[in-house]
Amino acid sequence: MNVLIIGGGFGGLEAAKTLGSDPRVSVTLIDRKNFHLFQPLLYQVATAGLSPADIAVPIRSILAKYDNVEVVLDQVLRIDAEKNQVIGQERTYSYDSLLLAAGATHSYFGNETWEEFAPGLKTLEQATEIRRRVLLAYEAAEKAQDPIEQKAWLTFAVIGAGPTGVELAGSLAELAHATLAKDFRKIRSKETTVYLIEGGDRVLPSFHPDLSAKALKDLSSMGVKVLLSAKVQNVDAGGLTLPDRSIQAKTLLWAAGVRPSRLAESITAPRDRVGRLIVKDDCSLPGLPNIFAIGDLAAFTGTDGKPLPGVAPVAVQQGAYVAHTILNDLSQKPRNPFHYFDKGSMATIGRRRAVLEVGALRLSGAIAWLGWLFVHLLYLVGFKNRVTVLFSWIWSYFTYRRESRIIPDREWRMGK
Amino acid sequence: MNVLIIGGGFGGLEAAKTLGSDPRVSVTLIDRKNFHLFQPLLYQVATAGLSPADIAVPIRSILAKYDNVEVVLDQVLRIDAEKNQVIGQERTYSYDSLLLAAGATHSYFGNETWEEFAPGLKTLEQATEIRRRVLLAYEAAEKAQDPIEQKAWLTFAVIGAGPTGVELAGSLAELAHATLAKDFRKIRSKETTVYLIEGGDRVLPSFHPDLSAKALKDLSSMGVKVLLSAKVQNVDAGGLTLPDRSIQAKTLLWAAGVRPSRLAESITAPRDRVGRLIVKDDCSLPGLPNIFAIGDLAAFTGTDGKPLPGVAPVAVQQGAYVAHTILNDLSQKPRNPFHYFDKGSMATIGRRRAVLEVGALRLSGAIAWLGWLFVHLLYLVGFKNRVTVLFSWIWSYFTYRRESRIIPDREWRMGK
Repeated sequence: MNVLIIGGGFGGLEAAKTLGSDPRVSVTLIDRKNFHLFQPLLYQVATAGLSPADIAVPIRSILAKYDNVEVVLDQVLRIDAEKNQVIGQERTYSYDSLLLAAGATHSYFGNETWEEFAPGLKTLEQATEIRRRVLLAYEAAEKAQDPIEQKAWLTFAVIGAGPTGVELAGSLAELAHATLAKDFRKIRSKETTVYLIEGGDRVLPSFHPDLSAKALKDLSSMGVKVLLSAKVQNVDAGGLTLPDRSIQAKTLLWAAGVRPSRLAESITAPRDRVGRLIVKDDCSLPGLPNIFAIGDLAAFTGTDGKPLPGVAPVAVQQGAYVAHTILNDLSQKPRNPFHYFDKGSMATIGRRRAVLEVGALRLSGAIAWLGWLFVHLLYLVGFKNRVTVLFSWIWSYFTYRRESRIIPDREWRMGK
Repeated sequence: MNVLIIGGGFGGLEAAKTLGSDPRVSVTLIDRKNFHLFQPLLYQVATAGLSPADIAVPIRSILAKYDNVEVVLDQVLRIDAEKNQVIGQERTYSYDSLLLAAGATHSYFGNETWEEFAPGLKTLEQATEIRRRVLLAYEAAEKAQDPIEQKAWLTFAVIGAGPTGVELAGSLAELAHATLAKDFRKIRSKETTVYLIEGGDRVLPSFHPDLSAKALKDLSSMGVKVLLSAKVQNVDAGGLTLPDRSIQAKTLLWAAGVRPSRLAESITAPRDRVGRLIVKDDCSLPGLPNIFAIGDLAAFTGTDGKPLPGVAPVAVQQGAYVAHTILNDLSQKPRNPFHYFDKGSMATIGRRRAVLEVGALRLSGAIAWLGWLFVHLLYLVGFKNRVTVLFSWIWSYFTYRRESRIIPDREWRMGK
C-alpha cells in the first residue's frame, strides 16, 4: 500500500519513521526543501548564534535507513481526492493514504505588503534574511552621519509577543548589550532600543498570567521596551505606526500571526477561520478517511473545545498516531480517536531566563532555562548537531560571542 | 598618521593587527564583506562538509581589541593618488599610507559568459552556489526519467587541476562514493563520474613532478577521471567541449584561472600580463612610496625572477612587512626590501591522501594529510571555529557523513 506524506517537518517525519519499519507499506515523502528544519531554534540563526546547518538535516539522510521510504524534492500544486492523486510540479503521485503535514507560514492579516519591511521567522531563508538585516543595521548605524538616521538604525521592533517574539527580542537585546559591545567605534551598540509590540494585554498569552508577568519583568530588566495593547496600524521602510505614536525603526520583525500552508487550499474540504483543515477525531478529513491532516495545517478540536495549539509536540504525536492508524487499517483493526498528551510548554527570554509550565507546575529563571536547553538539545535531530549546538551555547555563555555573524551577498556571481 | 587598508583577507588583516598595537597610527580597514574568509577550506563548504560561518569571522570582531583600528563596510570605486584619497561607494577616505590587499577572483580568459555554467570558488557565495548545484544534481538525477539525462546529472567536471581543482574533485568523489551512498532509491550515487580536466600535462603543476604523479594515482584510485593536456573549448548548460570529445555534465566547476581584483584597475600604475600591480622590492608602487600592494593583487618579483605565487603565506608576510615598513618610516628608519620565506606548500586529495613539499622534502599519503589538517587548523582564525572544524573532521572521518547538506532557497519571501 502506498502512503504519501507531504511535508518533512515534525509531523511528517515522525509518520515516515513509524511507517518506515513496516514492510507492508511503501512511503513517499514530498517536501519543497531537502532538509528538515528544527524551527524552535530558528531565532538563534536569525540572531547569529547558530549556523543554518546546525538546525537543518537532510530529510533523506534522516530516512536513509528505511528502505521502503522514498524522499522526493517537489512542490505540490493540488490534490485530486477523487483519483487519489497528488499533482506536483515535477510529476503526479498516486496514493492509497495521504498525509498532509506542510505546516504553517506567516499571516499579515491581509497586509501582505508588510512582509518586505517586517519579515517573519518560519524558514531558514527568513532567518538568514533577518540576520542580514540585523547585522547590516549596525554597519549602517556606524556609517550614518545624521544622528536621527543613526538612531533609526539602532532601533529594532519585534511585532508579536508570543514565544518567537519574546525569544527574538531577548536575543536582540543581548546582541546589542554584550556581543557587539566592543566592535564599533562611532556608535555604542548598548544604546540600541529593542521594542516588543503586542496587541494583547500581556506577553506570552498562551502561558499562565504569572509567567507572563515574570517574562515582562525579565524583558524589561534586559532593556527591551514592551508595548502592550498596541495594535500596529502601518508598517513601512521607516518604521511602524501605533494608534498613539509612531516608531522610527529601520529593522522590523514580524512574529504576530500564523496561517496554514497554501497546501490546505489545494483540496476541497472544510477549513476553520484561519484556514486550517478541520479534521475528525482520527485526524482524517470529513468524508475522506484515507486523507489525514496534522500539525499546524489542521484544526483538531481538543478536549477543551478549542483547536490544539500549533506546537511541535502536537505534530509529532499526530504523525505517530496517523502512522499507527494506517497500519491498524491494514490489520483491519478499528480506529481509536487521537488524544493529545500535553507535556507542557516553555519559552526562553535570555541568559538564565525562561518560563516553563507543566500542568500546575510553573517555573521561571535559571531552572526553567536549563530545562529549556535540555529539552531543545534532546529533540534536535542529529547527534552531530546536538554536540555542535551544545558547544555553541557553552561558548556563547562564557564569552558572550556569537560566531555566525556573517553577511553573505545574495548574488554569487563575481560581478565587477 | 592615517593608514588605509583595502581588503580584510590574509594580507590586510595581518597588516591591521601589526599596526593596531602602535598608538602613532590610526588605521581604517575597508572591505565589501563584513567577514574575513579562510579561503583554503572553501572547497569543504562547497562540498557540504563545513558551514559558511565555520570559516568566516567578522573582521570587526577580529580587530575589536585594537582601539586605533576602524572597520568600514564599503566598496572602493577608485583611488586618487594625487589627492591621497580613496573614493568609496559610501564616502571618501583620506590616507597618508595606503595598502591595497583586495585579493583575486576568477578569470575565464575572456569567456566571462562561462561563469553562469561553471562557477569558480573564491567567495562564500560561490561556495554555497556550488553546494546548491552539487546537491540539486543528485536530486534531479533521482527524479530523472530519461537515462541520458540522469547520467548527465551524475556527471561532474572540474576544470583546472591546481590545488583547488584537485581538492574539489577528490571531495566530490568521496561525496558520491561514501556520503550519499545510502540516501537515494532510484540512482546509485556510486555511479557518479567526476572528471578533472587540466590544460597542462600534469595535475598540481606548482608541485614537484613526483608529487603530481602521486596525486594523479590517488585521484584515479578514488575514481576521478583525470584528463590531461585537455584544453576546454566551450562550456554551456549541457557540458563542455574538448578538442577530441565533448562531455555531457550538468555540473561544471571552474578552478582554472585567476585574475586580480578590479581594485588593481582603479589606480594608474603598471600592471603585469594578468593585471597584477607591479610592485618594488618594498611592496610599494613605482613612484608612489606611500601606496603598497600585496598578496594576489601584486606582482612581486621573487629571487627566481618569477612573481611570488598567489598563496596565503605571501600575503601574510607582505602584510606584516608593509606594516613594519610604515612604522619604520615614522621612526625615519630606512626601508629594507621584502624577502619571502617559503615554508612549503601542500594540497589535500582525500582521506589520508595529500601531498606536501618543504624545500627538498616531499611527502604524500597519511603523513602529508595529517600535516595538512594540522596546519589548516592552526591558521584558521578563531578558537571556536578551530574546535568546530576539528569536530566536523573527526565526525566525517568516522561516519563518512557531511552535515551541511542543505539547499536553502535564494528567495526569502514566503511567496505563494
